[in-house]
Amino acid sequence: MTEQHQHSPDGIVGQIDGLQVPRYAGLTTFARLPRLEDVNAYDVAVVGLPFDTGVTYRPGARFGPSHIRQASRLLRPYNPALDAEPFREAQVVDAGDIACNPFDIAAALQQIEQGLTPLIGDGRPFLALGGDHTVALPALRAINAVHGPVALVHFDAHLDTWDTYFDAPTTHGTPFRRASEEGLLLKGNSAHVGIRGSLYDRQDLLDDVELGFTIVHCRDIERIGVAGVLERVLDRVGTAKVYVSIDIDVLDPAFAPATGTPEAGGMTSRELLAVLRGMSELPVVGADIVEVSPAYDHAEITAVAAANLAYELVTIMAMGKRR
Amino acid sequence: MTEQHQHSPDGIVGQIDGLQVPRYAGLTTFARLPRLEDVNAYDVAVVGLPFDTGVTYRPGARFGPSHIRQASRLLRPYNPALDAEPFREAQVVDAGDIACNPFDIAAALQQIEQGLTPLIGDGRPFLALGGDHTVALPALRAINAVHGPVALVHFDAHLDTWDTYFDAPTTHGTPFRRASEEGLLLKGNSAHVGIRGSLYDRQDLLDDVELGFTIVHCRDIERIGVAGVLERVLDRVGTAKVYVSIDIDVLDPAFAPATGTPEAGGMTSRELLAVLRGMSELPVVGADIVEVSPAYDHAEITAVAAANLAYELVTIMAMGKRR
Amino acid sequence: MTEQHQHSPDGIVGQIDGLQVPRYAGLTTFARLPRLEDVNAYDVAVVGLPFDTGVTYRPGARFGPSHIRQASRLLRPYNPALDAEPFREAQVVDAGDIACNPFDIAAALQQIEQGLTPLIGDGRPFLALGGDHTVALPALRAINAVHGPVALVHFDAHLDTWDTYFDAPTTHGTPFRRASEEGLLLKGNSAHVGIRGSLYDRQDLLDDVELGFTIVHCRDIERIGVAGVLERVLDRVGTAKVYVSIDIDVLDPAFAPATGTPEAGGMTSRELLAVLRGMSELPVVGADIVEVSPAYDHAEITAVAAANLAYELVTIMAMGKRR
Amino acid sequence: MTEQHQHSPDGIVGQIDGLQVPRYAGLTTFARLPRLEDVNAYDVAVVGLPFDTGVTYRPGARFGPSHIRQASRLLRPYNPALDAEPFREAQVVDAGDIACNPFDIAAALQQIEQGLTPLIGDGRPFLALGGDHTVALPALRAINAVHGPVALVHFDAHLDTWDTYFDAPTTHGTPFRRASEEGLLLKGNSAHVGIRGSLYDRQDLLDDVELGFTIVHCRDIERIGVAGVLERVLDRVGTAKVYVSIDIDVLDPAFAPATGTPEAGGMTSRELLAVLRGMSELPVVGADIVEVSPAYDHAEITAVAAANLAYELVTIMAMGKRR
Amino acid sequence: MTEQHQHSPDGIVGQIDGLQVPRYAGLTTFARLPRLEDVNAYDVAVVGLPFDTGVTYRPGARFGPSHIRQASRLLRPYNPALDAEPFREAQVVDAGDIACNPFDIAAALQQIEQGLTPLIGDGRPFLALGGDHTVALPALRAINAVHGPVALVHFDAHLDTWDTYFDAPTTHGTPFRRASEEGLLLKGNSAHVGIRGSLYDRQDLLDDVELGFTIVHCRDIERIGVAGVLERVLDRVGTAKVYVSIDIDVLDPAFAPATGTPEAGGMTSRELLAVLRGMSELPVVGADIVEVSPAYDHAEITAVAAANLAYELVTIMAMGKRR
Amino acid sequence: MTEQHQHSPDGIVGQIDGLQVPRYAGLTTFARLPRLEDVNAYDVAVVGLPFDTGVTYRPGARFGPSHIRQASRLLRPYNPALDAEPFREAQVVDAGDIACNPFDIAAALQQIEQGLTPLIGDGRPFLALGGDHTVALPALRAINAVHGPVALVHFDAHLDTWDTYFDAPTTHGTPFRRASEEGLLLKGNSAHVGIRGSLYDRQDLLDDVELGFTIVHCRDIERIGVAGVLERVLDRVGTAKVYVSIDIDVLDPAFAPATGTPEAGGMTSRELLAVLRGMSELPVVGADIVEVSPAYDHAEITAVAAANLAYELVTIMAMGKRR
Repeated sequence: MTEQHQHSPDGIVGQIDGLQVPRYAGLTTFARLPRLEDVNAYDVAVVGLPFDTGVTYRPGARFGPSHIRQASRLLRPYNPALDAEPFREAQVVDAGDIACNPFDIAAALQQIEQGLTPLIGDGRPFLALGGDHTVALPALRAINAVHGPVALVHFDAHLDTWDTYFDAPTTHGTPFRRASEEGLLLKGNSAHVGIRGSLYDRQDLLDDVELGFTIVHCRDIERIGVAGVLERVLDRVGTAKVYVSIDIDVLDPAFAPATGTPEAGGMTSRELLAVLRGMSELPVVGADIVEVSPAYDHAEITAVAAANLAYELVTIMAMGKRR
Repeated sequence: MTEQHQHSPDGIVGQIDGLQVPRYAGLTTFARLPRLEDVNAYDVAVVGLPFDTGVTYRPGARFGPSHIRQASRLLRPYNPALDAEPFREAQVVDAGDIACNPFDIAAALQQIEQGLTPLIGDGRPFLALGGDHTVALPALRAINAVHGPVALVHFDAHLDTWDTYFDAPTTHGTPFRRASEEGLLLKGNSAHVGIRGSLYDRQDLLDDVELGFTIVHCRDIERIGVAGVLERVLDRVGTAKVYVSIDIDVLDPAFAPATGTPEAGGMTSRELLAVLRGMSELPVVGADIVEVSPAYDHAEITAVAAANLAYELVTIMAMGKRR
Repeated sequence: MTEQHQHSPDGIVGQIDGLQVPRYAGLTTFARLPRLEDVNAYDVAVVGLPFDTGVTYRPGARFGPSHIRQASRLLRPYNPALDAEPFREAQVVDAGDIACNPFDIAAALQQIEQGLTPLIGDGRPFLALGGDHTVALPALRAINAVHGPVALVHFDAHLDTWDTYFDAPTTHGTPFRRASEEGLLLKGNSAHVGIRGSLYDRQDLLDDVELGFTIVHCRDIERIGVAGVLERVLDRVGTAKVYVSIDIDVLDPAFAPATGTPEAGGMTSRELLAVLRGMSELPVVGADIVEVSPAYDHAEITAVAAANLAYELVTIMAMGKRR
Repeated sequence: MTEQHQHSPDGIVGQIDGLQVPRYAGLTTFARLPRLEDVNAYDVAVVGLPFDTGVTYRPGARFGPSHIRQASRLLRPYNPALDAEPFREAQVVDAGDIACNPFDIAAALQQIEQGLTPLIGDGRPFLALGGDHTVALPALRAINAVHGPVALVHFDAHLDTWDTYFDAPTTHGTPFRRASEEGLLLKGNSAHVGIRGSLYDRQDLLDDVELGFTIVHCRDIERIGVAGVLERVLDRVGTAKVYVSIDIDVLDPAFAPATGTPEAGGMTSRELLAVLRGMSELPVVGADIVEVSPAYDHAEITAVAAANLAYELVTIMAMGKRR
Repeated sequence: MTEQHQHSPDGIVGQIDGLQVPRYAGLTTFARLPRLEDVNAYDVAVVGLPFDTGVTYRPGARFGPSHIRQASRLLRPYNPALDAEPFREAQVVDAGDIACNPFDIAAALQQIEQGLTPLIGDGRPFLALGGDHTVALPALRAINAVHGPVALVHFDAHLDTWDTYFDAPTTHGTPFRRASEEGLLLKGNSAHVGIRGSLYDRQDLLDDVELGFTIVHCRDIERIGVAGVLERVLDRVGTAKVYVSIDIDVLDPAFAPATGTPEAGGMTSRELLAVLRGMSELPVVGADIVEVSPAYDHAEITAVAAANLAYELVTIMAMGKRR
Repeated sequence: MTEQHQHSPDGIVGQIDGLQVPRYAGLTTFARLPRLEDVNAYDVAVVGLPFDTGVTYRPGARFGPSHIRQASRLLRPYNPALDAEPFREAQVVDAGDIACNPFDIAAALQQIEQGLTPLIGDGRPFLALGGDHTVALPALRAINAVHGPVALVHFDAHLDTWDTYFDAPTTHGTPFRRASEEGLLLKGNSAHVGIRGSLYDRQDLLDDVELGFTIVHCRDIERIGVAGVLERVLDRVGTAKVYVSIDIDVLDPAFAPATGTPEAGGMTSRELLAVLRGMSELPVVGADIVEVSPAYDHAEITAVAAANLAYELVTIMAMGKRR
């Protein structure tokens, strides 16, 4: 049913045309884009990872992908901030959700890695919609198989470099410790942005340095602003290939109430959008937006924020074709 | 992407298997059924009519189809109350939404009629998910073109046989007056069920009789029960072909808060499900479920009720193949 | 601004005409009726008592009057269940709210009594919109000054005949003990309907009998039905003048979530409407609907229930003019 | 801090006195009862099982125990329907929550069983507040160790006798198949009540019979009423020891929106309370109330229903001391 | 019923005195001001435009006027930021709502224009409470009849200068294209502030310049701050008469969830209030606040923001009398 | 039941270990700390003041203490912003709630003062969780008895220095006028921060100066930032002992919807946390966080903000032990 979609001269199937079908109508894919099986080839895949068995407080992020897709219906084809037309410059598709076992974390991680591998192919960028943050680990494993170690730019209230929790090695609090240990990340090129709130121990910060990260604390943004954040991030990343991981709780609960472990004092969506746009020249090979837990949302405001963040990431990936 | 769907030996494509893909995962169609364009032929179509420009109080039913689809993910393939397997006995598909003009009621009605006509073909039953009650008029027009006049069984708090409102002849308060005037209904075989609440005038009731209806008042259910309702409905309908129209506000606001003109003192969902099941032998040629306005829902309870009502209607349509 | 109101031939100013001004438009009075100061004389007054300092659990009923008025915009002029046109048969007005002191219960009770007295005049019936149940006491005092002791028909989950709470003699748990002690009620003609839930002591029930009440327990309705309830109420009341007091928590929390001390296992709105209609021949001299606490409402379902209960009470009062 | 509690002459520590400390104040235990560690001995324990890793749709029941405790603050000491004073007739305590591993179902089941065992001691009854329905399995195992096989009275929309789901043998859909297989239940004395909604297969019903159950379908209640349900249950159970398991989704979503797999057409809370009261003579050795998922609640109505159901169960357990 | 209102020595009828009648009590007008028909003359009118048939996504703004009025009860008579007493310096009234046809956009626009014309008289400023943004067009037409073309200061996430949508020339996406085409605006003196989010096409920006606008993008505010915004606006407007149009979605969804087409990355209410105050010397001849869609609000936060924005605009209009 | 708590070498009983008991489990105390009666001695007490009879608009803050405790379960033991371990450096306890009369303001104030006095002992700092702002008065009285007059740093949208309201001298609008009159405050060292919104009269500002306060208006923060606020506060306070009073409505409604008299244009939680941290060297002898009204909260975002503010205050108090 691609006949209602916009088509570019070079055969790219774009969004269902909002001037033909109102944006509240039609079966819902991300940004009203075609499904993977409705096109012959694609450049960028958006894929859902409905998994939340790794959470330590409020579950529910298994409903994240469908919730973000709902709000993404509002997205239009031209991105004025980056002067780009992501859905015309590249073939972007919605690859649906990867089915993952809700009762066995290890099995689910394997399913996710196996599901992402063909999407990446020989290096296609993808955007994963979580799901809880555990999913970043299999995503990085799949990335690593093609790209080798990458720089991580990680937006989050939390470090997610704890060791174990209730004896479990892979939960939403541990993906980046595991990733660092497994050599999936470029030590010295990775950064956390937006960290705040209480920690279990002073040692958490020392361990984090050891694992190869630097931190841009959220409390510093009040002083250094978006420009300061960007400067630190770009310096850190250098010319490396980049994986961007956005835990929606990097935003203040006012902007993103629908999440599992909310922390006061977060970023505004305007700040985060600006930081992402400032990263538009980076070679982003993959990204995720995680921890959207719809049962706690109101008027879809968290989903609207997530959808707009997703839009910037997809735009950056599509702009990669220009190079 | 029908590979994850259940397939019956006779080639029918059923639901995405909930044992392979969790029910919260996957792109959302009604009951996780295949899309119309994913099958070669079909027996029953479920179609969305995202239109709400005909409402007189709370709008928002344009989001009804996607909201009901969300909740319909909970539906499983076996209907024990009717001992039927609707998605195995018949090929049921989700035909998506018919795009309709939100600014021009007449244009929208025409789009709906034109969209339903090919779905009906030479007499296939369909279930329309509204949208406001205005959509019942083009649905009955499309039905009439194939089947001639039909008996209407209309579940609603309101008569919907007003004349005009703000000079508009076709709004959600008028479809059945127009339908009666146009000869789309079998006078003497049609009934309203669940009527309650205040009216504009005594004359409303007299006009309604004149238009060919009888009324089962909601206040009588307390006394006659489901059995009494069924007796009256079946007597009234006789052997005629039937169109079933369910305004979700026939349920009490406790059961269906998400609607446009709520009235206290309504039916329970258990009662309404029982009445529908009692109609399982009737030749239902079409049906709608309308006036679900998601912004007013809570925990999807209205959508869950609507999805279960939809399931009974689709089961009855699928069982029609047995005859 | 009564020009948009419907006018009956005998000079009665009715509702703002919903066919001229949509029901969601216009400044909000009860049922879109004229304000007291916009008419020359009136038969029935609806008045708000925004007071909730007497509550023992969830406060917020101070916002009850405006919340019920919002939902009352849906009411239309003809009551088919009672075959009456309340706003044409009698001049009904919205008398606004009586200002009452939120910090001093005794002062507030005096303000309410003094505010109701002129509304009653030489015996006009009124409907008070609470506010918490404390307001029933000054209402009964004002009634008593004109009518002498009356029969009380009290719909509630709770007896409201406790003695004191935190030394306070007049709270929402005590109005009917005080009223009985003050001789405002006809002992032997008064009844509680819908009582359920846990109590502080066995003695509560014995005290209640002593104070002159009989109880129709909510758990009995499952067995005796609406007809059984009505029989007991009408037997009890006999030919006495009646005051009807409805604590919205007599409804199950499913039907009326927005209340201060919810109890499971309550009445449905269909049952309560039927009981009220069965009382239509009684000489109702006053009534209240209390304990609607809007912050806990959803989609205005509690307010819709309250507005419809109010409509039946006002209809009964208006029908009193026929006698 | 038991000084604010009510004390009976025989040394039983009751609730914090609502006349001394308002019910919205104080640290929250079930029904404002003492904690286990604040008394010397006890007859009945209420214990939380904050576990929801076994769910197949909406998670969140891990927050169930604290949510039910919040609403249980409304409970008072005298139960008029059963003419009993549960907190004076027996020492009832809140034993807190059993910590269970959220990442490993098997480990969690073991923790629950090990946690319940000392609470039961040589046969003390307990009420477990879930958590998802998986927890019923370790509860029945712990019961079995002391009492041997018991009759199960299971209130639920779903059978919960599926076999596996995503290869997992113990989830919220399977506890009673496992329990039957393990010989924890008296075949021929166990019953499901309130079953409704779609199933995966006709075979589900046949399997269920094989496992030793009978079914009181929810759709039958419309016809047989509470009395009919009770008759069937009491006949089935006979004189056996009983375990009562209440999945809150046995109630209609109107009454219990806050649950994981809502099904339309359910019981009312008034009906369920009446059925429980009719079971007051049965020797109930344990019980659970599960699947309350607070993120989906509104105005605490689900929690109020659950707390009142809990109150009836605790009363029945306390009344057991009379025998 | 103006006796409870505050009266200034020069005969101005102010708010209902919050020290006599609590702010949660009384029939609701904007800021508890007198109705138009309760005063002899007035300087500034606040009027509701309950119309939302022009929306392209979430409807519901028809309930905007009553929702904003509810929250406006919190407003007090002294504005410290501008050191003004708007309700004492000028006679401000609530003119109620203009009834407009919900089924015919053209008819409604005419009703609005005809309703505003007498309110303006020979040049009185007014504040319109929408309703969707379509209403700005008839407002500008009515303004133009008295004042000629004006400078537009337009706060919005969206340009609202699209051409047609579904063939409709006047919707909430087109008012300022139509206004520019009709010569209602001073080209070169008009500005959009707060624009952000995705667009349909690059051409949208070029068209907008052609129509006479300049844009202060929301993403620039992070850098230029309130002072920078103000500088641009004041430069642009110069000494022209000004119409201020505020689409509430100029605020971030965190601050204004209750709107029809939310966009992430918006202004804070503190920023917008500061910008308005900086415009206090401008000759504002009319203004609107639109797109408040109450069904999506929470705790009235959108309404509180809208009411405070309204307060600043009315203050500026009242201060105009000083000149 | 302190066995699950963390214990420091010097005998301090800390939080229930989140690695042993998940944070959503267990009976809820503030930050999962021990109850007062579970330790031998303590340094800092957190205490609830569930009182809201002093409010003038939305009540409900009586549920504030339990709501904040719920969200405080998320707090962990290490505060990285202040490099402190508050629950290891000092013995912090939850002292439960002080029972206060909801019907008699004067009685309640006395109960609060009498309840706080032993908690303070010879000078222990405490954090009170309100409740409405009236409770600050008895808190300051109890402080004064030990410490004499103190500097007040008052974060609020409102001055709370009105005189009387409905003749009541002690409400949530008057505590600091009364405190100033009673000599509880150091005139010249006290400050309001975050003031905004409309006032009753110009005179309110003059009176406030007279009472000894200076004001940091919220509108100034846009210009002076956190650093500017801190400079003014620290200059004002000097070396005096400090009482910190935080009305949660100092935050914008986007960050704290759950409050009684919301005002647009407020502080962000990031700003307020930064200001508090900048005060970490001050000798804080007591503090309160008030006006959290849970019925208006969403996803606990107000409670999360309040809990994090509480955490900073408790950290500052615990750090006081270092001196």
